[in-house]
Amino acid sequence: MAEASPTTHRSIESLAAECSQAARQVANLSTARKNRVLQHMADALLDHQASILDANNTDVSGARDDGLPEAMIDRLVLNEKRLQKMAAALREVASFSDPVGQMSATTTRPSGIEVGRMRIPLGVIGMIYEARPNVTSDAAGLCFKAGNAVFLRGGSEAFHANHAIADALHEALEAEDVDPAAITLVPTTDRAAVQEMLTLNQHIDLVIPRGGEGLIRFVDETSRIPVIKHYKGVCHLYVDAQADLDIADDLLIDGKTSRPSVCNALETLLVHEDVADTYVPRACALLREAGVTVRGDEQVQARVPDVEPATEDDYAAEYLDLTIAMRVVDSADTAQDHIATYGSNHTEVIVTDDLPTARHFARTVDASVVLVNASSRFSDGGELGLGAEIGISTTKLHAYGPMGLQALTTQKFVVYGAGETRHPVPERTA
Amino acid sequence: MAEASPTTHRSIESLAAECSQAARQVANLSTARKNRVLQHMADALLDHQASILDANNTDVSGARDDGLPEAMIDRLVLNEKRLQKMAAALREVASFSDPVGQMSATTTRPSGIEVGRMRIPLGVIGMIYEARPNVTSDAAGLCFKAGNAVFLRGGSEAFHANHAIADALHEALEAEDVDPAAITLVPTTDRAAVQEMLTLNQHIDLVIPRGGEGLIRFVDETSRIPVIKHYKGVCHLYVDAQADLDIADDLLIDGKTSRPSVCNALETLLVHEDVADTYVPRACALLREAGVTVRGDEQVQARVPDVEPATEDDYAAEYLDLTIAMRVVDSADTAQDHIATYGSNHTEVIVTDDLPTARHFARTVDASVVLVNASSRFSDGGELGLGAEIGISTTKLHAYGPMGLQALTTQKFVVYGAGETRHPVPERTA
Repeated sequence: MAEASPTTHRSIESLAAECSQAARQVANLSTARKNRVLQHMADALLDHQASILDANNTDVSGARDDGLPEAMIDRLVLNEKRLQKMAAALREVASFSDPVGQMSATTTRPSGIEVGRMRIPLGVIGMIYEARPNVTSDAAGLCFKAGNAVFLRGGSEAFHANHAIADALHEALEAEDVDPAAITLVPTTDRAAVQEMLTLNQHIDLVIPRGGEGLIRFVDETSRIPVIKHYKGVCHLYVDAQADLDIADDLLIDGKTSRPSVCNALETLLVHEDVADTYVPRACALLREAGVTVRGDEQVQARVPDVEPATEDDYAAEYLDLTIAMRVVDSADTAQDHIATYGSNHTEVIVTDDLPTARHFARTVDASVVLVNASSRFSDGGELGLGAEIGISTTKLHAYGPMGLQALTTQKFVVYGAGETRHPVPERTA
Repeated sequence: MAEASPTTHRSIESLAAECSQAARQVANLSTARKNRVLQHMADALLDHQASILDANNTDVSGARDDGLPEAMIDRLVLNEKRLQKMAAALREVASFSDPVGQMSATTTRPSGIEVGRMRIPLGVIGMIYEARPNVTSDAAGLCFKAGNAVFLRGGSEAFHANHAIADALHEALEAEDVDPAAITLVPTTDRAAVQEMLTLNQHIDLVIPRGGEGLIRFVDETSRIPVIKHYKGVCHLYVDAQADLDIADDLLIDGKTSRPSVCNALETLLVHEDVADTYVPRACALLREAGVTVRGDEQVQARVPDVEPATEDDYAAEYLDLTIAMRVVDSADTAQDHIATYGSNHTEVIVTDDLPTARHFARTVDASVVLVNASSRFSDGGELGLGAEIGISTTKLHAYGPMGLQALTTQKFVVYGAGETRHPVPERTA
């Protein structure tokens, strides 16, 4: 495996300090200048195509030599088309409206002061990710547009490509006189460097880990810096007594089969007992036609005898493949209890035409995205209208759900007055 | 010092688990029912006046026996008037509009789905505080109105009063059939219990420490739960070349002298050199008339020779008394550099009539509250229109600046559709 020479802790810290210094410049760049940099980044990726693909070849050969699984190698591979998508993503970020400097509506207080809130960058975003080299440019572009510097620690598998991509991005920063430390790629991929990075809360404001559950747990347990994360998506489709069953069919097939390996795919179908005699056999037939294995509780098995039994483990499982758990419930409340027990606060769907049931589900289900009569697969930054997604949060602090540019900012209070004081100022003798 | 019998770690955890269970109920209470509970809490505080004041007497005697400083005893003491203020604060919280369930404007996406965001509670708020028993009811009221359960760990000095107050609050919860675990007071005040509490990230969603810097550092360094905090307020008043000096006078006196011990009081005055010949002597005279000691740099001393010299320590100091540092700067940028070096991201003020200078300062100074021609003393949840304040954050994640009810909530995405799928669903043979 390719590995840089060991970097001392001292130099990880000094890199982070420089990145934090650069963040002050990025915070105050005009929108026009940021957009020019983003366009230039896209151009540079394509200009550097040969060296990036060469570097990626080195990574892929190393990964094959190390016997990495084919699924990981697929995430690692770059080609002309993938590079064009990365460039296009940067141009898309340039087209997004700039959150920085946006003022909320102001209120005039009884004291006379006018109070508003202005969106400002967070500072330095630390990204910790694994094999996908496209994250290097995707994350850099989003963080930069939101006025932040980014401190990138990619996986060792993608070491050479990440560096070639960072070189291209730096060319774009330098062309617009922006401190290249605004996009810092940590030059070492050993775990000690990550551990050191996670102590630098004086320089790094937020850490977003992207990768397997092991990586995320390690980051969350080690970090002195706030971490935004999600572990998994155990998403449910609840088909209510008052459901339109044609809609249920569509959401079931789209949610389970359009891309089973992603976190907003369905894992469990809950069916109200009033429609179970009709819908359980219908859903099983439909799923099986689509190649999906069904595991059901006793009530499902009573209606479709050859269904495999579902266990507690099935209800908690994020299958990420063509398997689904199925259960019959006696009410919407029981469905919600099941979701509260086994769900992952990610994405939950109800199919119903009954307004009070829909409103109650939307209001009380604790998930970052709750959908009524729409597919779980819409739980995505782009589909929800955030533009693009830097990550997703299933914890509630700062952001809950898919995170776009706005989640990379915060708000400060800005107050204008005409000399107001909180208390009357005494007459002065002078 | 009064101290409960040691509680095992097991029971701290089981208390937190019960509190977390109660949070599910509180999250879904109607606004009317929450307001009835809050009114009932206010009544109960007054009904229990005798037992609360008795308990407080026990605490105060213990504190005197232990030789606690008079300033701390002042924070500890309750009396009829203070209890009435606590009750009035609860009634005021009842009058605030309920953030829970508020829907943002919705957007219709090209796919046809309608996307909005709904405010929801955070879950369980852990409060760790010192001598002030009023925090018990203030924090409980705000957390409850925002749909959260609260896990309170008060200081050992206020042990008896905190329990008497909690008894009154529980009576109000029970009268409305709300699980009393929604307001849980940790029955022990030893540090081991705090340490255990700070590991319970499966039950507690957010920790807000209120107290001295030592307590806050301990909590921040120990906690596995996100912490919202501020350490200190080193607030600057910058008098620009284009300042209205009468406004400068008012903001200086209000900011420095109206309540020097609070975090939004002024600590340093920065004066542009173009107005220094006029304003430095005038400010010194004004401050001295108000009993304030001035420590100045060489340029201040050149204009008012008997001013004490200011050192680096003065620029970093949060005096919290009638002392101020004063420095002459050659530009607004130099003032901002000074603020970036010595400020605490809390509250910063500019006095200027020049629009570009005001806009630049408001945009680029990194502080949670930036004021133009208005007193630093307005940096307060009530004054800024938040209703009341649960705390203040000088870190940017989740909340920045004074935090009201809204900062005790987050938003989830709520999507309504009519059967939309992300990908076309294949024709079915069935």
